[in-house]
Amino acid sequence: MQNPTACLLVIGNEVLSGRTQDANINFLAKGLGAIGIPLREVRVIPDVPETIIGTLNEVRARFDHVFTTGGIGPTHDDITSECVAAAFGVPWEPHPEAWARMEAHYAKTEQGIAAFNPARQRMATMPRGATLIDNAVSLAPGFTIGNVHVMAGVPRIMQAMFAVLAPTLAGGPPIQSRAVHSSGAAEGTIAEGLAAIQQRYPELDIGSYPYYRAGGQGVAIVAKGNDAARCEKAIDEVTILFNSLGAETVAGEPAM
Amino acid sequence: MQNPTACLLVIGNEVLSGRTQDANINFLAKGLGAIGIPLREVRVIPDVPETIIGTLNEVRARFDHVFTTGGIGPTHDDITSECVAAAFGVPWEPHPEAWARMEAHYAKTEQGIAAFNPARQRMATMPRGATLIDNAVSLAPGFTIGNVHVMAGVPRIMQAMFAVLAPTLAGGPPIQSRAVHSSGAAEGTIAEGLAAIQQRYPELDIGSYPYYRAGGQGVAIVAKGNDAARCEKAIDEVTILFNSLGAETVAGEPAM
Repeated sequence: MQNPTACLLVIGNEVLSGRTQDANINFLAKGLGAIGIPLREVRVIPDVPETIIGTLNEVRARFDHVFTTGGIGPTHDDITSECVAAAFGVPWEPHPEAWARMEAHYAKTEQGIAAFNPARQRMATMPRGATLIDNAVSLAPGFTIGNVHVMAGVPRIMQAMFAVLAPTLAGGPPIQSRAVHSSGAAEGTIAEGLAAIQQRYPELDIGSYPYYRAGGQGVAIVAKGNDAARCEKAIDEVTILFNSLGAETVAGEPAM
Repeated sequence: MQNPTACLLVIGNEVLSGRTQDANINFLAKGLGAIGIPLREVRVIPDVPETIIGTLNEVRARFDHVFTTGGIGPTHDDITSECVAAAFGVPWEPHPEAWARMEAHYAKTEQGIAAFNPARQRMATMPRGATLIDNAVSLAPGFTIGNVHVMAGVPRIMQAMFAVLAPTLAGGPPIQSRAVHSSGAAEGTIAEGLAAIQQRYPELDIGSYPYYRAGGQGVAIVAKGNDAARCEKAIDEVTILFNSLGAETVAGEPAM
């Protein structure tokens, strides 16, 4: 079975300006790999309607799933939701269920229903046909329309949304990974032998990553694919390669 | 003066698989803002030749500068350099200066010139017409061709390359930034007044960012643009807005 593919759009000027260090790419890369929907591309784009609409229409045609983070709050710079509606060519309108949940919530607050003001009503306004992604942290839901999953940018809210979304997605076999590392040989020394191993395992993705840690520097080799036994076998060959060059090895990735 | 624009390509399966937490986006976002070449888009793409070549040709036509990180080491998964040559339609060939530097370096090592093996020679092979970006950390240089700047993926090597590259780039006025934060008002409460302020400062980018820190939660408002006095004035208005809603404010961003 072929794995479905994923693209992530990180929407927000704050990541591009360096104001905010993104934490969602790495979380979703791991989470999507675990459910067999590997992440194939990420784009970080600004809060500009034409850019969001154009990018969304390009990538939703190219990937099985598109995940977005950011831009679904109540302020003027939160424009993801209306841009998704424009990309799909559907009306952007109050979502009955989201509206009812938020209206009921704010009715219980100090200011009462007045607190469910136009800015907050925008968070209950969605593309027609959207289905909700629950938000266990701060109520205002995300949503799915077609193959596009719209989530919050705040990491702990995004993570809560992904926790309810992930089990609803039909993934492929999870991505398996095996690794070995050595502080005894440089990348340039093992490169030729490593390329030969990659050729014998064309279905695997074998990566070579130098590392610089407190405990010393070296090279980590990682094999990824759907078949754990094949990953294991490839890493065995890499271990023999290191050893043949007089370099000692340790199974797995180096400690952080 | 209009600011020139930048796009960053992060090239590497390891970021998309979650194996590696990218650290280059945030560093370059800040560094490029500081020299007035704001980052307008980031793409994280896999080690797939057609993807690298196609993406590069798309973005180098759309942005004034393109920066790439990753894929310039000696192993089989390091294919950025030859893909850049293919994108520009020029030969990929030994670069005389890079070759001479690396040959001289390896001649002094234990294995001598034999250590300058074909894998390492690939790191001295570049698109015809490339000019070198010095690497003070591990010798093998990056390069510039046209408006594309090719750098290493290992953060400390990338940072050393950017330190020599940045002063050679003609930037625009640096991006100025002013901020205020408050733990006393929610985004949904200030949204309407904030939108009105953004409309009065159309040349600024005013962002609203909720935060959750050990010291408490709240909202930070950041104004960015070329004119520090206008940023200051807009943030003064935001401060008055917060205060009018009974919320106390603190100048600047919340502490991490």
